Amino acid sequence: MNPYNAPLAEMRFLLEKVFDAPKTWSEMPAMAETVDMDTAAAILDEADKISRELIHPINRSGDEQGVRHEADKVITPDGYKAVYDQYAEGGWVGLCGDPEFGGMGMPKMLGVLVDEMAYSACNAFTLYGSLTAGAALAIHAHGSEEIKEQYLPMMYSGEWAGAMDMTEPQAGSDLRNIRTKAVPNEDGSYKITGSKIFITGGDHDLTENVIHLVLAKLPNTNGISLFLVPKIKVNADNSLGDANGVTVGSIEHKMGLKGSATCVMNFDDAEGYLIGKPNRGLVCMFTMMNYERLAIGIQGLGTSQAAYQMAADYAKERVQGVAAGGSPTGANCDPILVHGDVRRMLLTIRTLTEAGRALSVYTGQQLDLAKYSEDPDVKAKASRFMGLLTPVSKAFLSDRGLDAAIMAQQVFGGHGYIRETGIEQLVRDTRIAQIYEGTNGIQAIDFLGRKVTGDNVTALSEFITEQVANINGYQHVSDADKTRILGLLEQLLVVAKQVNENKLSHPALINACAVDYLDAFGYSLYGCFWLAMVNAANDHDDDNFKQQKSHLNRFYFDKLIAKADFHLSQVSMGDASIMQMDAELF
Amino acid sequence: MNPYNAPLAEMRFLLEKVFDAPKTWSEMPAMAETVDMDTAAAILDEADKISRELIHPINRSGDEQGVRHEADKVITPDGYKAVYDQYAEGGWVGLCGDPEFGGMGMPKMLGVLVDEMAYSACNAFTLYGSLTAGAALAIHAHGSEEIKEQYLPMMYSGEWAGAMDMTEPQAGSDLRNIRTKAVPNEDGSYKITGSKIFITGGDHDLTENVIHLVLAKLPNTNGISLFLVPKIKVNADNSLGDANGVTVGSIEHKMGLKGSATCVMNFDDAEGYLIGKPNRGLVCMFTMMNYERLAIGIQGLGTSQAAYQMAADYAKERVQGVAAGGSPTGANCDPILVHGDVRRMLLTIRTLTEAGRALSVYTGQQLDLAKYSEDPDVKAKASRFMGLLTPVSKAFLSDRGLDAAIMAQQVFGGHGYIRETGIEQLVRDTRIAQIYEGTNGIQAIDFLGRKVTGDNVTALSEFITEQVANINGYQHVSDADKTRILGLLEQLLVVAKQVNENKLSHPALINACAVDYLDAFGYSLYGCFWLAMVNAANDHDDDNFKQQKSHLNRFYFDKLIAKADFHLSQVSMGDASIMQMDAELF
Repeated sequence: MNPYNAPLAEMRFLLEKVFDAPKTWSEMPAMAETVDMDTAAAILDEADKISRELIHPINRSGDEQGVRHEADKVITPDGYKAVYDQYAEGGWVGLCGDPEFGGMGMPKMLGVLVDEMAYSACNAFTLYGSLTAGAALAIHAHGSEEIKEQYLPMMYSGEWAGAMDMTEPQAGSDLRNIRTKAVPNEDGSYKITGSKIFITGGDHDLTENVIHLVLAKLPNTNGISLFLVPKIKVNADNSLGDANGVTVGSIEHKMGLKGSATCVMNFDDAEGYLIGKPNRGLVCMFTMMNYERLAIGIQGLGTSQAAYQMAADYAKERVQGVAAGGSPTGANCDPILVHGDVRRMLLTIRTLTEAGRALSVYTGQQLDLAKYSEDPDVKAKASRFMGLLTPVSKAFLSDRGLDAAIMAQQVFGGHGYIRETGIEQLVRDTRIAQIYEGTNGIQAIDFLGRKVTGDNVTALSEFITEQVANINGYQHVSDADKTRILGLLEQLLVVAKQVNENKLSHPALINACAVDYLDAFGYSLYGCFWLAMVNAANDHDDDNFKQQKSHLNRFYFDKLIAKADFHLSQVSMGDASIMQMDAELF
Repeated sequence: MNPYNAPLAEMRFLLEKVFDAPKTWSEMPAMAETVDMDTAAAILDEADKISRELIHPINRSGDEQGVRHEADKVITPDGYKAVYDQYAEGGWVGLCGDPEFGGMGMPKMLGVLVDEMAYSACNAFTLYGSLTAGAALAIHAHGSEEIKEQYLPMMYSGEWAGAMDMTEPQAGSDLRNIRTKAVPNEDGSYKITGSKIFITGGDHDLTENVIHLVLAKLPNTNGISLFLVPKIKVNADNSLGDANGVTVGSIEHKMGLKGSATCVMNFDDAEGYLIGKPNRGLVCMFTMMNYERLAIGIQGLGTSQAAYQMAADYAKERVQGVAAGGSPTGANCDPILVHGDVRRMLLTIRTLTEAGRALSVYTGQQLDLAKYSEDPDVKAKASRFMGLLTPVSKAFLSDRGLDAAIMAQQVFGGHGYIRETGIEQLVRDTRIAQIYEGTNGIQAIDFLGRKVTGDNVTALSEFITEQVANINGYQHVSDADKTRILGLLEQLLVVAKQVNENKLSHPALINACAVDYLDAFGYSLYGCFWLAMVNAANDHDDDNFKQQKSHLNRFYFDKLIAKADFHLSQVSMGDASIMQMDAELF
């Protein structure tokens, strides 16, 4: 398996040239003190180094060995613990955490790039830190001061890990029916009892404690509340106390992500502390969920990038067949990169990955603006855009992640099916990203049903208006490309308004057409980002960089953007042919 | 995992009503004596029974246990040997084999349906018999009478297995560079020496002998010849003699198909016998390859059908959420089949699977006509259509097989990622079908480069003319659907002629656009088959059956056929944006 190298020039380009991070940061006091492009570039360099030298080497071996569950202990693969210790010591778990509680206070715009590198290096390992950061975010947003002071420093430092405990056997996408109970104790704490399944990082040997955020129901309510439940009780001085009635029932045997512990967790009168208000647990959990959704999109993005590197390297090395029209070097066999079909696959992966990275950085920027901006209008608008883009980032990035891994595997031919080459692991590892943290169908329904039509297309209109203004302002892109993308943006609005008008008379319309609408939006948005990148690359120092962008943009507009038309046409055909067939005829 | 049930009504409908197998058979003397609809229906019933009761039960356990390589022996998973014995005793390996040598002489139109069931029940197990039947076909077509008499009865009876030995580490898609040598002995046999990789069923414990068909080079030539090399030498009386210098170097550890032995085979002065003429080995091997290519398409089809059944059953049982617009039963939770997005996925799988089965039966019919018809015009035309459709069947059916498995896995949500439910195994098992027996990129290049433009679009024009005539003759389909599909067929011809005109001035054009052209053709052809099915279902006894076809056709034309437009648009954009970027910029 090839060593991983982060696309650092690309990352700096997005931050500095495409999305003008220095300006964003300088305009927000909390960021202005914390970060500038030099700091950001240094952090990216360091993240590249640890991803390549520390994390990537345990990727394959962790897949082969897997997590074990022995004598009530969950044991991660060899090397995970040592790597996690170094990762935590480097402060990476708390990279974007609040400095008041020991975090590094870095912007999410930068954090998404660091996450991408770690996911490229190893999907399974990276989840442990990602879940911890997400749990810390929810605690930070909704926990009491006392809870925050006690738990956040230990989580940002990586000494304690976090987990999100929502799913039960009968309650997956539909959480209303959870059965886990929370009974109040006299001291203000609660006794939590119930079983949770599919708990990523539910238990493991990387940290001495695991802090669970558990959804449960208070007595005599149907509302859902959120509780912090440590695996081991924590004393006032942060030393560890007694076991807390939190045990692992079993670990799941999965298609991939074999280094990530997916646990059945049993809570038996475990002591827990309410986070946020009673019966408002889903709102609190969604702070974590939205964070994780973006992170899971980035899992797909990291996979795409790793897949591209592996396949491009292989296509340059593997010789087989002669170029159509004759070998450029007169050889008997050319590298398979000469073949149009191999190039088609690589260009597809690459154009989607680069636009995907732009989506990831842009969404991170909206998160930062929503969190740190002192201008209430900027803050509110960023919050609306973030709401719009979170389901898109989760679903579209993870869907394209699987596409990329499968296509890269195809470039390897027969060797791609053999475990040794490592590319098949990417397919298995990234497949889950389309499912967990809300399936991509659920994301699409959130997008079309709540974010797009829930406010009568207001936020989408605002977002598209901004994109249109951006595109009209680009000096260095072709008129034909501008016309093409502006036409699509207009169509997206027209179709969204149609759906909005018809949704009451056709109650199944949104559920039936959501995935196609999200895909149409995604392919169009990537077109916007391609133009943004081409425009920004015009005065790039490196002529190769500029040429690459120009070639890749051409490919995207020639070959891929028409997918947006296809998906829009599907939405326009409505829900009749989906809903009419009786259930018994399936 | 749900028990497998073959779609028998569907299969009989295709044979009898859509493709009029009784007429085809009655017009060919060799078939008229062998098979009628009653016989065919009885064989389908029996194949369903063994697929469900015999083969399917070893599917999951075989995946868990895998093949082992111990002390120079390759050991298949528990149960494989006992099931194989019963399968062979039933005559299934020789189902379509020549009765002169002990085969059952059944038509391929029927054989493809039996193969589909077996692949639905277990991808890995079914390969052993499929490879044997394919090797027997090549021996039948190109072997001497002596060879045929000695080997075919033992292969049709399943007592000996077959394997196809082509790939070497340096020679995969490009076989010119194989290094395996064949040196003539004085008795007319040859000494074969070399190493082959990725040999499916290269060795195993299911049969006492394995008959290898090996590509090798004669001294002082660059031509490639085909040799029959038994693992154990065979005496004149068919008893087994000495070992033959054929050993297993290792077995591959793969993403899936873990019950199928994929071997590195070493030949060390092994005794072999020339099949066909010297230096004409590729032609002989392609008799087997073309057979295997259709079989591998059917692997994808069988996977699609299994995936549909599992996902549809799950969607009817799993309750989660309430139907948009309110539960039809007033329940707190409905089966997820009420949700539009779940229906969309199931309908996508099902419409592609049913049209795929039509493609498989139609291609089988062409094989039968090409082989058994006594009318030279019919025979020659069928041979042209078979050439056209073989790469399409292999690539389009296997691509849709992966799509189906992934979509079905998505219906299962988180449970789909867990090994226990079995759906993830389908994804892993079927992934290889897009790669082996010539990658789907190679299939597409064969299709567009040789079959479509190689004869200046003659065979394609003839095929499309016949489809147009069929469609114009349908009494029970809508004019709108007719117009839609006729437009697509016309466009397919227009674009094929454009490619044909430009292929010399743009030597990379075919390689760069082949996959998209094949996909455009596939989605259009499925539209033709949908209309054929709807038309034929009009007077079906079972009103539910008729309704299903009507609903499914509506879904296909509303939602999926536009993929043909998308892929045609990609072809029309040519190869410039694929070929222009310099290799070092990748």
